[in-house]
Amino acid sequence: LSAQRRRILSETTKYWPTRLELTVNKGKNLLEAMRSQGLNILSMCGGRGVCGKCRVIIRGQGPLTDPTETERTLLTELELAAGYRLACLTHATKTAGIQIAIPPESEETQQRLVVAGFAPQVRLAPAVMKLFVRLQPPTLKDTTADLERLTEALKKSGKLGPVDIGYNTLRELPGLLRIGNWQVTVSVFRRREIVSVEPGDKREHCYGFAIDIGTTKLAGYLVDLRRGRTVTTVSSLNPQAKFGADIISRITYAMRGEEAIDELNKCVISGINALVQEACRTAGITTREIVDLSVAGNTAMHQIFLKVSPRYLAQSPYPAALRRGLQIKADHLGLDVAPDSNVYLFPVIAGFVGGDAVADMIATEMHSSGELSMLIDIGTNAEIVLGNKDGLVACSCASGPAFEGAQIKHGMRASEGAIEKVWIDPRTLDISYKVIGGVKPVGMCGSAIVETVAEMLRTGTLDSRGRIQEGGDSWRIRGTDGMKEMVIVPKTETGIDGDIALTQSDVREIQLAKAAVYSGISILMRHMRVNPDHIKKVFLAGAFGTYIDPASARDIGMFPEIPLNRIQFVGNTAGSGARMALISSQTRELAESILPKVEYVELGADPEFQKEFVSAIDLPNARKGLFPTVERIIEYNRSSMGRRL
Amino acid sequence: LSAQRRRILSETTKYWPTRLELTVNKGKNLLEAMRSQGLNILSMCGGRGVCGKCRVIIRGQGPLTDPTETERTLLTELELAAGYRLACLTHATKTAGIQIAIPPESEETQQRLVVAGFAPQVRLAPAVMKLFVRLQPPTLKDTTADLERLTEALKKSGKLGPVDIGYNTLRELPGLLRIGNWQVTVSVFRRREIVSVEPGDKREHCYGFAIDIGTTKLAGYLVDLRRGRTVTTVSSLNPQAKFGADIISRITYAMRGEEAIDELNKCVISGINALVQEACRTAGITTREIVDLSVAGNTAMHQIFLKVSPRYLAQSPYPAALRRGLQIKADHLGLDVAPDSNVYLFPVIAGFVGGDAVADMIATEMHSSGELSMLIDIGTNAEIVLGNKDGLVACSCASGPAFEGAQIKHGMRASEGAIEKVWIDPRTLDISYKVIGGVKPVGMCGSAIVETVAEMLRTGTLDSRGRIQEGGDSWRIRGTDGMKEMVIVPKTETGIDGDIALTQSDVREIQLAKAAVYSGISILMRHMRVNPDHIKKVFLAGAFGTYIDPASARDIGMFPEIPLNRIQFVGNTAGSGARMALISSQTRELAESILPKVEYVELGADPEFQKEFVSAIDLPNARKGLFPTVERIIEYNRSSMGRRL
Repeated sequence: LSAQRRRILSETTKYWPTRLELTVNKGKNLLEAMRSQGLNILSMCGGRGVCGKCRVIIRGQGPLTDPTETERTLLTELELAAGYRLACLTHATKTAGIQIAIPPESEETQQRLVVAGFAPQVRLAPAVMKLFVRLQPPTLKDTTADLERLTEALKKSGKLGPVDIGYNTLRELPGLLRIGNWQVTVSVFRRREIVSVEPGDKREHCYGFAIDIGTTKLAGYLVDLRRGRTVTTVSSLNPQAKFGADIISRITYAMRGEEAIDELNKCVISGINALVQEACRTAGITTREIVDLSVAGNTAMHQIFLKVSPRYLAQSPYPAALRRGLQIKADHLGLDVAPDSNVYLFPVIAGFVGGDAVADMIATEMHSSGELSMLIDIGTNAEIVLGNKDGLVACSCASGPAFEGAQIKHGMRASEGAIEKVWIDPRTLDISYKVIGGVKPVGMCGSAIVETVAEMLRTGTLDSRGRIQEGGDSWRIRGTDGMKEMVIVPKTETGIDGDIALTQSDVREIQLAKAAVYSGISILMRHMRVNPDHIKKVFLAGAFGTYIDPASARDIGMFPEIPLNRIQFVGNTAGSGARMALISSQTRELAESILPKVEYVELGADPEFQKEFVSAIDLPNARKGLFPTVERIIEYNRSSMGRRL
Repeated sequence: LSAQRRRILSETTKYWPTRLELTVNKGKNLLEAMRSQGLNILSMCGGRGVCGKCRVIIRGQGPLTDPTETERTLLTELELAAGYRLACLTHATKTAGIQIAIPPESEETQQRLVVAGFAPQVRLAPAVMKLFVRLQPPTLKDTTADLERLTEALKKSGKLGPVDIGYNTLRELPGLLRIGNWQVTVSVFRRREIVSVEPGDKREHCYGFAIDIGTTKLAGYLVDLRRGRTVTTVSSLNPQAKFGADIISRITYAMRGEEAIDELNKCVISGINALVQEACRTAGITTREIVDLSVAGNTAMHQIFLKVSPRYLAQSPYPAALRRGLQIKADHLGLDVAPDSNVYLFPVIAGFVGGDAVADMIATEMHSSGELSMLIDIGTNAEIVLGNKDGLVACSCASGPAFEGAQIKHGMRASEGAIEKVWIDPRTLDISYKVIGGVKPVGMCGSAIVETVAEMLRTGTLDSRGRIQEGGDSWRIRGTDGMKEMVIVPKTETGIDGDIALTQSDVREIQLAKAAVYSGISILMRHMRVNPDHIKKVFLAGAFGTYIDPASARDIGMFPEIPLNRIQFVGNTAGSGARMALISSQTRELAESILPKVEYVELGADPEFQKEFVSAIDLPNARKGLFPTVERIIEYNRSSMGRRL
């Protein structure tokens, strides 16, 4: 068990700040010290104390210079109190070993494929266990039936009471008993149902498969149920993509009728089967050795996976077909695993807050924490959950596809050639950027788009209505009125036949998207009667949540002003929750037990929503004082940079 | 409930002696009196007091002549004490109304299609009940998921606690709720699982289907679950017949592999679906209105129905694949009914004592009776059960197909043109016979073959070794040594181009078949340490059991000398048991609870079996004194008829 705990911890530490002792020579700043020791940390301005990206946390006391005015501007008071500094502006007053932590937002390299996710340690208690049993062959004196011979031997061994048996296993039982010469390994689900029988002693091979069905992406985790360990992680695009990129287009397709639902269903099932086969090939096992499965996905993906029409999810008031979690036989669903395996589907909260959100909650343990925390999982829809062990509220915002790079002129997915980081020099409007894969840029991914909007706002290139301002003497801003755009990368530097630019229309898309998220959060806070100070932790989940620059998202007013050290990147917690349901079957009861605690808030039915939304379209918000940090930065840049806008 | 009880009683009375008051004029015999009043009763000798077929039971005292010497010979002492008389030999000493009962063996016309069966009255308590429920449609204020909206309404109505839902029903639920405008009828299995949802109020239509899968015949019973009434009874040949007439040839075919099992399975499933469709058409309902099913069949038929290979049933020690009863979803089996219906399969006792035998026991209630009773269900295999509420023993005898007319020169099934009754005049060896359908005879069915052997034995035409004797001056016996045969119907009277005769080889087949049955009974009696006197009731079940002449079967030594009034024809009790499992779901627990009470006796493993079998080959048995009645008749015929044999 301790080995398993260590393993789970080591899998999860990447979501915690990297901690280290850094030797710094007298007079040197921390950024120089880190680089000289081969440690990469983000910096966009070349260590000139301007971009504010090289954030580190000083642990304990060290012989360091005091925070500069720039740091006092770019960092919040609470962050300063928590030890945050900008590495390039913090100098050692004498040579010393300094204990620092690098927060995830300052890590140079983030993982691209967000399939790993934060997960708490859980007690190893899988739903399926394997038992090896030796039987006496039948004789004329003992003609006990095959099944009863098996169950009585299991009973005699003291390991099991009465058990059922899956239909497929029953069908194969007589042959398997004889192939195994009356020695077989039995997979038992929750001590009450035989889901697989294999000839010989196969106890070593006991696997589960956890699946996260995203609208865009499928992720699969092959889990060794005896050790509670993820053996192989696999992922692919959801092959349903050919029926439309987003949920609504999938639902629209499904509304054509039973055949269309079948088609969508076959698509996702074959996609999952391909992942199962890939994972098993990698691990060197057969797909039949998978005897337990768990699935988390959004409500529409759940319903299509179950071949339940998602049509009513698209019609007000958008009710789900079912809320409860389910156990369904793998052979009912056509999955390429042991056919009597029980496939656990997480319960859902509402039509647009699905099983993935429940898995998120379980993986982050926000349902059992005394502290108030908030989970934000942003995709085409953003699911937001706010609460603690005393109760939770959840909503879904139609944030649209802008954060995924869609409907943005030069938007693209976070793949090779995508700009992922942007910094605008407030004095010159010069732009530094980083590209995934280090190649010539071909577009901008969602996180870069958000960061660009934030930078434009901070540098005064956007006003509070989101209008692109005149560029003064900079060539980067061009066009007139509503047709303005800012060139991020000129044609000469791009991998495409043209400039990469962010247009007025792109800014507008981001404004609408972030307003949807903010107003959702705002309504949930009203429901809970809390303000941002009360929120002790923010979990950013999912792919976008992992790539996003939290300071930029906060500064454009996507989520309330909350100290960045309260923000935790948790990765694919839907996948983590699904894996937890395999490693510890109690997770399934837990998922059911959380449901009554979660109040679903239908934003469309809230009289305040429209007002909140309209006010949140402004950058950062039409209501002043909600975002003191960015307001301070804008003012600082305006006054100190002396540039006329 | 009382209407239902009456109905079940009226369905079953045909298995009880017909009771009536008969007015008899002074000096007339009872046979004349009955015929003059239009009542048919069996008589083969033309009322001459010779054949002994016109058995009636006198109830109470009447002004009648005393039993003649012939009656004292042809009837046992116990039968005489119980009021049995031969109608043609019983005269009224004055005109009076006489209370008589006609035992089933004396009824002129027996039903041909044995699908009805004796069944005790059971409390109406079907597994599936229908509930009508009105739901509030979802609104933005109440976005409860469809399934939970339904289950919560059911809960609120106080009719149900938490329930599961079948997968197919779940898939259709969102559409059905809306088609029904949020008013639906829900079929709930055992108060815990929704197996069907229909738009509108459909409580009136709640049906189950009971199936008896015989090796030869399929019988189906459409049962109105609200009223506990059988609405329609349907039957057909088992279409598996094309793969062989008996179980062993089916198993042999199945041993070719998975595809062959599939083929056999498809055969029986399509046969059952045809019956379902026919029954529903007749009743004017849709097949989807069938929401509960029960199945009884022999072990091999069970396993093929489940697609479980029957191969090991053909290999010593012949263990069944499973003993327990099962609930399997109809859609798993491909049945054309509500797809989430649970199909109940009776438990089996052993490889050759199947679910039909369990259903037999339940329908005859022998498991709960204080009296010792015996059930005999004769087919290719004869299943025999002996016992009472304190315990039962069961065995299967390989009686072979002779009783079904197979491997007999002029043997045939009990269909039109088959001789069904035979009487040999002991003085002249003249033969009277009756033919099904009243046409020219084309062969002999099993019951006639048994009766012919008995008649030949009684008249001294067979010796105790079963050898056909010289015919004296009768032309009917011809051939020499082992090649002898007795002409039953000369060519001039037959519907075929030749005589109908019973050969020495036919007699040998019957001897082997009846020896198998007798030795099985004998071993069971030894196990129970009882003798025939202790057996208070004998249930003859199945088609052959219904047609057979019990006196003939007894006289050739097929079963022990037991007074005929203890013998009850119970018809298709396998079908009755299956219907009971629909009408009262407690029947299913009952079936399971009987199992531990039943000890299976493998005849092949009993050291006494071979000896019993060899001794039972003789007619009636090599051990003298076991069959006093037939011994007395043989002696009577020999001495009084004065014919030289």
